[in-house]
Amino acid sequence: MGTRKEHDFIGELEISDDVYYGVQTFRALDNFQMSGRRLKNYPFFIKAFAQIKKAAILANKEVGVLDSTKADALAKAADRLIQGEFLEQFVVDMIQGGAGTSTNMNVNEVLTNIALESMGHKKGEYQFLHPNDHTNLGQSTNDTYPSSIKVATWNKLSDLTKAMETLKTELENKAKEFKDVIKMGRTELEDAVPTTLGNTFNAFASYIKSDLERVQYAKEVMSTLNMGATAIGTGINCHPDYKNIVEKKLNEITGGNFKPAENLIAATQDTADFVFVSGVLKTAAVRLNKIANDLRLMNSGPRCGLGEINLPKMQPGSSIMPGKVNPVICEVVQEACYEVIGNDTTIMLCSERGEFELNAVEPGIAYALFNSLILLENAMKTLASKAIKGLNANVESCKKSVLNSIGIVTAFNPILGYEKSASIAKEALQTGKAVGDICLERGYLPKEEIEKILDPQNMLNPQMKAKK
Amino acid sequence: MGTRKEHDFIGELEISDDVYYGVQTFRALDNFQMSGRRLKNYPFFIKAFAQIKKAAILANKEVGVLDSTKADALAKAADRLIQGEFLEQFVVDMIQGGAGTSTNMNVNEVLTNIALESMGHKKGEYQFLHPNDHTNLGQSTNDTYPSSIKVATWNKLSDLTKAMETLKTELENKAKEFKDVIKMGRTELEDAVPTTLGNTFNAFASYIKSDLERVQYAKEVMSTLNMGATAIGTGINCHPDYKNIVEKKLNEITGGNFKPAENLIAATQDTADFVFVSGVLKTAAVRLNKIANDLRLMNSGPRCGLGEINLPKMQPGSSIMPGKVNPVICEVVQEACYEVIGNDTTIMLCSERGEFELNAVEPGIAYALFNSLILLENAMKTLASKAIKGLNANVESCKKSVLNSIGIVTAFNPILGYEKSASIAKEALQTGKAVGDICLERGYLPKEEIEKILDPQNMLNPQMKAKK
Amino acid sequence: MGTRKEHDFIGELEISDDVYYGVQTFRALDNFQMSGRRLKNYPFFIKAFAQIKKAAILANKEVGVLDSTKADALAKAADRLIQGEFLEQFVVDMIQGGAGTSTNMNVNEVLTNIALESMGHKKGEYQFLHPNDHTNLGQSTNDTYPSSIKVATWNKLSDLTKAMETLKTELENKAKEFKDVIKMGRTELEDAVPTTLGNTFNAFASYIKSDLERVQYAKEVMSTLNMGATAIGTGINCHPDYKNIVEKKLNEITGGNFKPAENLIAATQDTADFVFVSGVLKTAAVRLNKIANDLRLMNSGPRCGLGEINLPKMQPGSSIMPGKVNPVICEVVQEACYEVIGNDTTIMLCSERGEFELNAVEPGIAYALFNSLILLENAMKTLASKAIKGLNANVESCKKSVLNSIGIVTAFNPILGYEKSASIAKEALQTGKAVGDICLERGYLPKEEIEKILDPQNMLNPQMKAKK
Amino acid sequence: MGTRKEHDFIGELEISDDVYYGVQTFRALDNFQMSGRRLKNYPFFIKAFAQIKKAAILANKEVGVLDSTKADALAKAADRLIQGEFLEQFVVDMIQGGAGTSTNMNVNEVLTNIALESMGHKKGEYQFLHPNDHTNLGQSTNDTYPSSIKVATWNKLSDLTKAMETLKTELENKAKEFKDVIKMGRTELEDAVPTTLGNTFNAFASYIKSDLERVQYAKEVMSTLNMGATAIGTGINCHPDYKNIVEKKLNEITGGNFKPAENLIAATQDTADFVFVSGVLKTAAVRLNKIANDLRLMNSGPRCGLGEINLPKMQPGSSIMPGKVNPVICEVVQEACYEVIGNDTTIMLCSERGEFELNAVEPGIAYALFNSLILLENAMKTLASKAIKGLNANVESCKKSVLNSIGIVTAFNPILGYEKSASIAKEALQTGKAVGDICLERGYLPKEEIEKILDPQNMLNPQMKAKK
Repeated sequence: MGTRKEHDFIGELEISDDVYYGVQTFRALDNFQMSGRRLKNYPFFIKAFAQIKKAAILANKEVGVLDSTKADALAKAADRLIQGEFLEQFVVDMIQGGAGTSTNMNVNEVLTNIALESMGHKKGEYQFLHPNDHTNLGQSTNDTYPSSIKVATWNKLSDLTKAMETLKTELENKAKEFKDVIKMGRTELEDAVPTTLGNTFNAFASYIKSDLERVQYAKEVMSTLNMGATAIGTGINCHPDYKNIVEKKLNEITGGNFKPAENLIAATQDTADFVFVSGVLKTAAVRLNKIANDLRLMNSGPRCGLGEINLPKMQPGSSIMPGKVNPVICEVVQEACYEVIGNDTTIMLCSERGEFELNAVEPGIAYALFNSLILLENAMKTLASKAIKGLNANVESCKKSVLNSIGIVTAFNPILGYEKSASIAKEALQTGKAVGDICLERGYLPKEEIEKILDPQNMLNPQMKAKK
Repeated sequence: MGTRKEHDFIGELEISDDVYYGVQTFRALDNFQMSGRRLKNYPFFIKAFAQIKKAAILANKEVGVLDSTKADALAKAADRLIQGEFLEQFVVDMIQGGAGTSTNMNVNEVLTNIALESMGHKKGEYQFLHPNDHTNLGQSTNDTYPSSIKVATWNKLSDLTKAMETLKTELENKAKEFKDVIKMGRTELEDAVPTTLGNTFNAFASYIKSDLERVQYAKEVMSTLNMGATAIGTGINCHPDYKNIVEKKLNEITGGNFKPAENLIAATQDTADFVFVSGVLKTAAVRLNKIANDLRLMNSGPRCGLGEINLPKMQPGSSIMPGKVNPVICEVVQEACYEVIGNDTTIMLCSERGEFELNAVEPGIAYALFNSLILLENAMKTLASKAIKGLNANVESCKKSVLNSIGIVTAFNPILGYEKSASIAKEALQTGKAVGDICLERGYLPKEEIEKILDPQNMLNPQMKAKK
Repeated sequence: MGTRKEHDFIGELEISDDVYYGVQTFRALDNFQMSGRRLKNYPFFIKAFAQIKKAAILANKEVGVLDSTKADALAKAADRLIQGEFLEQFVVDMIQGGAGTSTNMNVNEVLTNIALESMGHKKGEYQFLHPNDHTNLGQSTNDTYPSSIKVATWNKLSDLTKAMETLKTELENKAKEFKDVIKMGRTELEDAVPTTLGNTFNAFASYIKSDLERVQYAKEVMSTLNMGATAIGTGINCHPDYKNIVEKKLNEITGGNFKPAENLIAATQDTADFVFVSGVLKTAAVRLNKIANDLRLMNSGPRCGLGEINLPKMQPGSSIMPGKVNPVICEVVQEACYEVIGNDTTIMLCSERGEFELNAVEPGIAYALFNSLILLENAMKTLASKAIKGLNANVESCKKSVLNSIGIVTAFNPILGYEKSASIAKEALQTGKAVGDICLERGYLPKEEIEKILDPQNMLNPQMKAKK
Repeated sequence: MGTRKEHDFIGELEISDDVYYGVQTFRALDNFQMSGRRLKNYPFFIKAFAQIKKAAILANKEVGVLDSTKADALAKAADRLIQGEFLEQFVVDMIQGGAGTSTNMNVNEVLTNIALESMGHKKGEYQFLHPNDHTNLGQSTNDTYPSSIKVATWNKLSDLTKAMETLKTELENKAKEFKDVIKMGRTELEDAVPTTLGNTFNAFASYIKSDLERVQYAKEVMSTLNMGATAIGTGINCHPDYKNIVEKKLNEITGGNFKPAENLIAATQDTADFVFVSGVLKTAAVRLNKIANDLRLMNSGPRCGLGEINLPKMQPGSSIMPGKVNPVICEVVQEACYEVIGNDTTIMLCSERGEFELNAVEPGIAYALFNSLILLENAMKTLASKAIKGLNANVESCKKSVLNSIGIVTAFNPILGYEKSASIAKEALQTGKAVGDICLERGYLPKEEIEKILDPQNMLNPQMKAKK
């Protein structure tokens, strides 16, 4: 395979004929040897960028600044990227300087060379179709890059939503299955009052429900774009009608509901919406971590722990301790959550570093945010399918520990008062006796009333009456 | 002054007669010598807690489990706390173990002793009115404490909203004042294309507008309470009708719009909503920091910096450099923002540490969240009144730098194409010439067209036409 | 009391005669209404600042730029501050703009007015002794402020060291007390192989030992100062010999071992050493949190938890559940740790925001770092005296769970191999049988060898032999 | 290619004959679909793990528990991994549950099958050589996994050291080159007093010097291992002499200076040393970020910024603004730093989540720590070679701004006093006059004294004299 020569205002470079990217991508390849993670490792981002580009191309065609031949060739090229073709051409490191210019130019160059070939030209014959003058027409990195991040995030939030709904369903199934499994409630790790394992899983499902609402709100925040802003939001070099139609084109392409920002200047320089979205992911990670952690605690044992549930056995747990099984799925989920929370720090720092009309380190945001989206979705899926679905309960041992507990003394509170009840508890703890027996011994209440009060069902559904 | 004896199930203590708190507060005082910041340093929290208590008292009266004499005396006592009386009685360290039990008991004990005195009894005569049996009736720390944090947060978010609206107004005023002040736009700290100082301040105002929407959403998140949950959400020891009316009572007391959580068990153990709210505050802190930082950069000088604006001179800037004035208001605002962001880490960690039916370290959340709310409100107010209101622009020097810039070559792009324009820019940089002169010298365009293209007004309001 | 007039180059102000601070402090009071936490709330910082000032005064006297009358009066005034007098005069908010100038001027003004009175003048008669020309001679905020923070930190690290040593001793005492208490070791919350409670507490003591080494290193890092740097490190307005003796004077005053930085310019602008020190505190917080958390887990119960130890009962644990006792000391310690970790974020952000020859937001570092130092010391002390000292073990139940466990099958590994041992474990789990019994039933080993292998003592001190 | 059957105590699986890993790796592949980043993407970790394994094998051979045939075959297999062979066999996701068991077993299985083939057996014929009984003999994941992380980290810290030394050298070269370039010093972004560009780069070099010391200390912290601890530190199933020689073997293999931990139990469960090391990396990231940021500020322009230096032009800076060049290298370095700081949060969270005898989420630490090490090294290298090496100064404009500044009034301070000097500064600011001219006009000082005082050289090397 031969080579072609390409130049930019820095100078000329020789480029292998088999690549669709050009001189600017080439420079970026050399400049940014940082994470080793490339654009191609994030196909959903390339897809979103191609969708943005196609919308811009169609809008430029409609307002009459890009002729049909060029526009059609470019739109077709964009479609091929949307379909996942040419993914290997997206080689720039995700962590890159230049506020995303190298990403935008990688996309511009690949689109241009695909289109050039489809028009019967060779790669690099930019006199017929130019990456900056035509493919990037009426655009800037500063509007297409953040808009593409938002479209990609919007899409991944939809995927996340599906994973969360699956997890919620699995949790609700377990809540139904365990609705009659009485177990001890614990506050501050100490025995409190009875609950059911169904309650526990219902509460978990309820966490996910809260987060689904927040994620939905985050999607709305992500649906405001700054297309038409060009360099700094003033719309320089952009047809004035373009910005009113480019989001419409995008919505036709994506099925989304994207809309232009009210203030294009603010929208171009401000990246704090990503901080907000990451805050939503962090909130979900905190709740997911709580679920995974409670599962680990309830699963602890098999003989020297709480032993309330049995997580599915996924793999041998030790290279040295035969037969040991660990809650590896919960653990990997917790690690994913901690990555998401670490990414939140990175996103805040990058956002915090913006100056004037642009945030130069926005690629740092994209990298961390996309990693969080991937990890959180995988964590939700993994927990649902590999931990929740197959778990079962140790029904008898759950119940026994309630009946044996001191915490049920709480139910005497409304009748005996806090102080007498506390004194029963104290004796129970010192002597090992059951609280009901002490109450009876002390003659506080007749036996059947004690039994009624201490029936866990009554504690779970309190039927206190008003005093006469 | 004499002393009285009080006891709990740990033992008996002698308490000075002049204090309204009792034995449990006393123990907490000794146990928690941590931050030195006490409940009384957060009067808005005591007010919210008293509002919650009053709502519970009135609800208990209405469902018939608390007699009128006791209820009325307690409600009156609560009113006095709401008015700000007895603030000095709230002595427990904000950083406390026990999931807030010591805070709840500090409130219970003070309320009880105030009420006892109003009923003609002495402090500590709990046989007539008991902190646990009556004041805390149908309640638990585990519902009143998180509910009080939410009511307090809701209130402080309202205060924050006002401060943000003031800042937004000041920014909009400046946007109007500076709407014709042409200045250089900068991306990645490098000269880009022209903008106006009005655009800059409008963008800042637009940041605040976004955050106001997020804060409004955060208020909604904070308006869901778990009153009636008691110990773990099962409602043990609580009249079943109580939970349907306690929020109504609270709304009458506060003028708020609080409502019961759908799932009381989830609502009792789950603190991630505070992580979400802190995420909103962090987002606002990131944007506020951006404003403060851009102001510092534009104000830099007076002779060796950008010198685009003059912040009001608030104080001498140096103990050694005479006449030096620093942007101290912007700086203190940035520090406040960084405190808020640090608190976000703390809140996440505390929330992340919850187990089973409760989060034991919720007081750590309250402490950090309240500090964030105070700081962010103060920062918004301070920036508005001490930096934005009095600042003015160096109009001439702003304009001169635009006319002198190379970045305006961008306007040639649609006519000459990217490559020719880049070549003009390169020559301008090497020779120091103006880009318009080079364009003329090269004979690319006639003089008047060059002038029209380079008129900043045209760049600010692009009027590109479709090609024939 | 009357008033006096003071002026700076911003203008003139009327100041109450009863205050020792002057016009610049007054402006700062108005400008910085942020945290509500004032310099006076951090007496160890005022002490350190006064030590720095005294060292500067004595050095200036020695090199001959400050006459004896003035020097002696100022040195005496500094001594009074060192003794803790006049603390109420330090009124500026800890969170302040201006890189600490307001703190330095608060100190300069108070020192000057104390000295003026001792010289027979009135407060404000700066023609006889001037806050900038004499008290601040050869100094700048930019050397005295960071140096004072370092001296204060160095001192608090010494206090922290003492608290850590106390905790370590208490842990070692328990390690000795519990050296024969056999308990189950757990990995990933699952039963592993036997250990002793003594091992557990020895490991905790070992954590503290590691941290003591890090804290010692942090003290060394803090002992390098930039006195003599003045404004930006070039030493402008400072006698060239001064910088060679000022640290010597300081060491005489403090008993420390402070030394000048090699590069005064770097030392003046660089605050990352505080990030390092905060990293050390964070490391210690993570380990302390682990101790507190493991204690909570071992203490969990009393009947439905692990129940291996009993923490001292410090206070009633619930407003609604009689007799409940919670591990409140562990919890408050964990909250303190999370504050320390949150402060680490703040310190990093402030440090990260420095530009050019100075870090403007250094007061944000001081605030967060001092709070961390206070909290971590209190947390160490509290855990030692209120949790470790009085705890005891449930010896029998610890032992029983070991003997009953499946994890001890690991000891068969070297003889039977991993696969046979795993198969024993599997049967034990399914049937509830003891692993020794299964081994015997299957005829793998004779009874006495099984007993010997399963003797926990042998597992704790393995005596494997080489194969023939 | 055919398949073989392998089993563990979960069940049997069919495995393709072309892979060297076995059943446990296979399960992990399915269980952990999380980050998409696999062990093989971290070759330095595989190398370190193979070094640890070889050391264990040789130690087992020496103490007589592993026969020479097996030991030699395994040691040779380990050598091949150390050489980088078989990298593709390490397929498990870096983010994995099980505290690293799947990593250890992936290594055990690959080593075993390589050795089996070299012994004339087939893969999977574990009756001749068993992954657990022989390859993992006397070891556990819980000692080999953390030890391998430490060895890998130690190595990467050495690589980082080299990159830092290169950067330091480049900075020192520039410091020499620019030692006579006078420029304005700035504090709080405001003009302060003169400095030189040489001072600036010397200070940067001094930052790196500080960090090199911290990194050296971090290496020492990483050189303490827990080999011989096996499952929980008690050394179960390990020959008692083994732990005294395994580090010696390792040092022969690696050329390192590793040593056994004093307390093997603490060393097995405690991961806070990684928090400390990450704190060191964070400190270095903060300093590196400061350098990159100051470079961006000094480079700002070309015409509307500070324009003190020119960074090498690496690539076109904009898709829309022709001729624009951005400081992309500084930006990508800042992003890398923010990733490192985000990873610090993740590492803290994982470390903070350890319970009892082990930290289950240690793989989360390894992942984040390795990413930080890679990024920080790349960032140091990139800045050195692509930003520092080729930059030059705008000497004339640097000097002009000093002479034109007001800040030089500071030099009058010791002669005129702070108040007169401040008044000169004030007039200069209001009128635009030079401070020297005002001083002369006011008759404060004769012309030649003014000139001498304002000579930047004198300000840079103050020669204050003692007063008579």
